[in-house]
Amino acid sequence: MKIDLLSTSAMLKGADDILILAHASPDGDTLGGGFALCRALQKMGKRVNFLCGDEIPPKYGYLYKDIIFTEMEPKFIVSVDVADTKLLGKEVEEKYGDNINLCIDHHGSNLFYAKNTFLDPSSASACEMVYDLVKALGVEVDSKMADCIYTGISTDTGCFRYSNTTAKTLRYASEMVEAGAQLAEINRVMFEVKTKSYAKLERLALETMAFYYDERCVIVKITQDMYEESGSSPSESEGIVALTRQVEGVVVGALMREKKDGGFKVSVRTFNPIDAAAICAKMGGGGHPRAAGCAIDEPYDKALDILIKNIGEALEEQA
Amino acid sequence: MKIDLLSTSAMLKGADDILILAHASPDGDTLGGGFALCRALQKMGKRVNFLCGDEIPPKYGYLYKDIIFTEMEPKFIVSVDVADTKLLGKEVEEKYGDNINLCIDHHGSNLFYAKNTFLDPSSASACEMVYDLVKALGVEVDSKMADCIYTGISTDTGCFRYSNTTAKTLRYASEMVEAGAQLAEINRVMFEVKTKSYAKLERLALETMAFYYDERCVIVKITQDMYEESGSSPSESEGIVALTRQVEGVVVGALMREKKDGGFKVSVRTFNPIDAAAICAKMGGGGHPRAAGCAIDEPYDKALDILIKNIGEALEEQA
Repeated sequence: MKIDLLSTSAMLKGADDILILAHASPDGDTLGGGFALCRALQKMGKRVNFLCGDEIPPKYGYLYKDIIFTEMEPKFIVSVDVADTKLLGKEVEEKYGDNINLCIDHHGSNLFYAKNTFLDPSSASACEMVYDLVKALGVEVDSKMADCIYTGISTDTGCFRYSNTTAKTLRYASEMVEAGAQLAEINRVMFEVKTKSYAKLERLALETMAFYYDERCVIVKITQDMYEESGSSPSESEGIVALTRQVEGVVVGALMREKKDGGFKVSVRTFNPIDAAAICAKMGGGGHPRAAGCAIDEPYDKALDILIKNIGEALEEQA
Repeated sequence: MKIDLLSTSAMLKGADDILILAHASPDGDTLGGGFALCRALQKMGKRVNFLCGDEIPPKYGYLYKDIIFTEMEPKFIVSVDVADTKLLGKEVEEKYGDNINLCIDHHGSNLFYAKNTFLDPSSASACEMVYDLVKALGVEVDSKMADCIYTGISTDTGCFRYSNTTAKTLRYASEMVEAGAQLAEINRVMFEVKTKSYAKLERLALETMAFYYDERCVIVKITQDMYEESGSSPSESEGIVALTRQVEGVVVGALMREKKDGGFKVSVRTFNPIDAAAICAKMGGGGHPRAAGCAIDEPYDKALDILIKNIGEALEEQA
């Protein structure tokens, strides 16, 4: 059932022993939103726990270092920024996928797998929704909560660059800074500092850059060998897709990342009016109009053919 | 004389035949602020003109395409975002440098060359001050003015990444989006689209990256040959200094750009607590605590020695 802000708030007020779930390959929005909610619920005197199907990269440590998590049998399960239970990762999906009480999400592709879904596809980040929710719960936003919410808002909008950024996005970010969010430090960690291994992976990936459809489409590849050569890892490689958007004239950029067990994770970024979610939906994935993803479990040449064909159809539909 | 917002507003209300001056090597803040002011004054029924010592790069065309400029003998001269008359460029400085009625600026290094100076070094951009001024003048911000002000705010903060970004910066940006600023289009032009020639220059420059002082300092060089080889130009090369900030552990990054007539333009970026303005002041330049510039009119080896020595002293002072 789709529910609104007030019902969501009322439901959380009545709940306790709450487990928050983030999606696998966690990003700033699922982690920032999840941990902000943990903090708010804890302030209300509730026991909380948090679960993510993949390891949380160390750079996100400031989001949760001081939260007290309680090991317990959860009575109420909340997912944040998770459009589909598949995205929880196999283990978490199997254990909790059928018993999620509340889903808080901003993906238009949400599958309504939860008993209750608080959804706003017009929101640039799940964290903007979490901020509304924290206010509805009557909890004051402290500086650590502000760090969490600011992190989700800024990372899901490419630090306010992408077209999903709205006046509300900027206003909420401003309010987080007033509440004590460490803007400069967070921006530095999220957007500026490159480890040497990441910088090397970036260079290796850019060397694979290939153009299609009169240079309107660019595709970049990352193989398992490149992770090994650079010393980098899949957890820090998704951002490389953003580089595909930067070349003049490109309207669709895609990143193919080889999975450990073969096959590829694909991230797609587009410019208006090309619909990234529609392209990925054809390959069993989904996401937002300008940023989406899918998996293609085929060897490289075949995977590339499938991807190119689906991008070509999208370009043709717009021609 | 230093004057406040209300005096500045009163002074402009009483003026007519107004010439607005931007600094040479124009950026989004001097142009956005200058053209926003032109638009506001024109709405008040005043004649305006605009002058910049260098050609305005085509990407800024949307800021002024529809403004009506009047060729005239100016009765009132205003500089926007100009800390020192030297920065106007030789020709403009000689003609108007001694007769500037009002300077609107946010550089702590401002030399108070104008008869009246409206200065706020806590402001991330001159455009934030111009926005306050437009409101004080009683002019409603239309969508084109919002485009101008948004451009200055976003470009002077690296799209809200840099540590000069405040809650006010984000709130004003939000208000500009509400007033109709084309955030996505402006961000794309200012921050994402790289011409192929610029992308090539960037690669050439990055190859010169050299580390000093235990890799806490990185220096990148652009020569006249590189402009020729890449097909790029000095007007689009300053942004390359931002790349020096991205390497893990670096606290001072500098870009040395060879001038046509020999010698180097130097841009310095630092992280807290290293003071970029203090480093550049030692070489006759100035700017902000985290972003400053100067010129070193020496051959490369000597120029590099001077720069390294001054950076070293700044690092030592903080050790």
